[in-house]
Amino acid sequence: MLNRQMTLKSHPNGIPLPTDFELVERTAPTPGPGQMLVRNLYFSLEAAIRGWLDGKANYFEPIPLGGAIRGPSVARVMESNLEGYAPGDIIFGLHLWEDYSLSDANTILLAKLQPREGMPLSYYSGALGGSGQTAYVGLHSIGNIKAGDTVLISAAAGATGSMACQIAKLRGCKVVGIVGSEDKAKLITEQLGVDAAVNYKSTDDLQASIMAACPEGVDVYYDNVGGNTLNAALACMNSYGRIIGCGMISDYNDQDNPTPIFNMWKLVEKELTLRGFLLHSHVDQLPAALDQLHAWVESGDIKVLENITEGLPNAGWAYSEMMKGATIGKNLVKMDLLPGEEG
Amino acid sequence: MLNRQMTLKSHPNGIPLPTDFELVERTAPTPGPGQMLVRNLYFSLEAAIRGWLDGKANYFEPIPLGGAIRGPSVARVMESNLEGYAPGDIIFGLHLWEDYSLSDANTILLAKLQPREGMPLSYYSGALGGSGQTAYVGLHSIGNIKAGDTVLISAAAGATGSMACQIAKLRGCKVVGIVGSEDKAKLITEQLGVDAAVNYKSTDDLQASIMAACPEGVDVYYDNVGGNTLNAALACMNSYGRIIGCGMISDYNDQDNPTPIFNMWKLVEKELTLRGFLLHSHVDQLPAALDQLHAWVESGDIKVLENITEGLPNAGWAYSEMMKGATIGKNLVKMDLLPGEEG
Repeated sequence: MLNRQMTLKSHPNGIPLPTDFELVERTAPTPGPGQMLVRNLYFSLEAAIRGWLDGKANYFEPIPLGGAIRGPSVARVMESNLEGYAPGDIIFGLHLWEDYSLSDANTILLAKLQPREGMPLSYYSGALGGSGQTAYVGLHSIGNIKAGDTVLISAAAGATGSMACQIAKLRGCKVVGIVGSEDKAKLITEQLGVDAAVNYKSTDDLQASIMAACPEGVDVYYDNVGGNTLNAALACMNSYGRIIGCGMISDYNDQDNPTPIFNMWKLVEKELTLRGFLLHSHVDQLPAALDQLHAWVESGDIKVLENITEGLPNAGWAYSEMMKGATIGKNLVKMDLLPGEEG
Repeated sequence: MLNRQMTLKSHPNGIPLPTDFELVERTAPTPGPGQMLVRNLYFSLEAAIRGWLDGKANYFEPIPLGGAIRGPSVARVMESNLEGYAPGDIIFGLHLWEDYSLSDANTILLAKLQPREGMPLSYYSGALGGSGQTAYVGLHSIGNIKAGDTVLISAAAGATGSMACQIAKLRGCKVVGIVGSEDKAKLITEQLGVDAAVNYKSTDDLQASIMAACPEGVDVYYDNVGGNTLNAALACMNSYGRIIGCGMISDYNDQDNPTPIFNMWKLVEKELTLRGFLLHSHVDQLPAALDQLHAWVESGDIKVLENITEGLPNAGWAYSEMMKGATIGKNLVKMDLLPGEEG
């Protein structure tokens, strides 16, 4: 059975280009004992993948040249030799960018999804998947937000940022989002209810712009980008402020030359807590997070922003667009059907 | 009544020089309602004072040119209009560098000391005062140390560092100290029981030297210095590691040009927690800390390292020596008697 794979053709130099990826044709694998064969339906495009393309270890093994890209997907079980999973089940897990994957008990992030009626499956990669859960766990368990806090969020129009903005508003916080275009600024203030937006590309003094939007100071900074934004945010924090270290995308395209941070003294002076986290260390909190996220999406309190690219052949292009900062909301690749597959 | 004061003559350029300070003669103040007149006995020399000498706010108001230096002292109450305090009481508080100070309920760090028999009063400025309490609270409440942890401590022969080294050892940790001379390395390994010492001045690859001393990785880093040492330590942390932000002395002499930190990505990758703290935010923990510290000092489990300079006229010189890194242990100024005072 034909199995297309999107592979790494060349290590990107800075922002990945579509030509760094290559679609190849393989034969679908056969599941052995304890394994499932799954049909991938939606791939979640993640900033973290960028780190795996450089040929160096970065909390996961690097992807070798010619190897398939890996990323989290929503998939349907076709055959199962794994207890607790049956054909037709919808699962989530870290798979390869391909039509059919093997999955087993060791698959990173493996979970059986319980899609609810009326919820598009794609949501389980984003708002009801890793992005929404990351925003939820980060704000509550790492940032310890409470009503009345001023919460600053970078990459605020992104997959995680757009969820974090809305969750913090629902918790009674003042929310200020940092974005990279006027369109995004308009979007988060007009559609997501964010109190103010700072466009980092249109200011030459980011710290002053943040302080103008948060004259009372920042209690919690949800950091998706690191670099100069983190440096500026450090200078704007109130005493006992919390910084949620979720991602540092500003350095992902050039990890050998990270942006220097100069404002570390604020850590002591303001008694700040900076805490990094990865979602897989907080799985115990996911059921409660998912219940709440479902309720907010169903009620319309949370708007889901998706940017869906159709077809595995376009996955490299879609990833390039995301990593150059051109997209809004959750980036997904919706898998196209192969010849012979039913519609 | 004569009251000598040590004042700020010039803003230091880099390491403070003895000539940046000037002794002047004033008249002792008269306590008003709610105030006490106290005789200062021991001044604790603190790295934090350096920040107040630059004429810029740094979590306290700057000290103006011609103004008296402020610093924590152990003092004896001479007259008291403050309820709960009587002549003869021994107190601790942030006073001016002078013979006689006014103190009241708003005095920062004000506490009535209960000196125990056999304990030199000087200890209440160091091992049984701010240094010991800072080390204790930092390791337990911020660093959450537990037996078996590998704990890295910078400025390990200093007032706080030497206490942190011994406390962590008593809690069953492996302890590696970072110091700036072979004498200090010898001292902490031979006298304080530290497992290994790294001399940052004799290595051109601090990260590699730390990893050689901690091949299992670092669980807790007690940071007294910031800068390049913090940057190197970040790269040596184990997952879920904790960094205690106690001080950043490497930048205190030149605060307008802080050392850049490049390894912030480790915060996310290793899910680290960096948390800064100041002792005055943790006063609820001090009674228990002090009980334990007394017990350890009385039993001889903790060795107290003191460097006592005699006489207020030498306070500027003593501070300069400390800030150039030339001293070991707790730096104190023991006040000399004025003409007419009893011996």
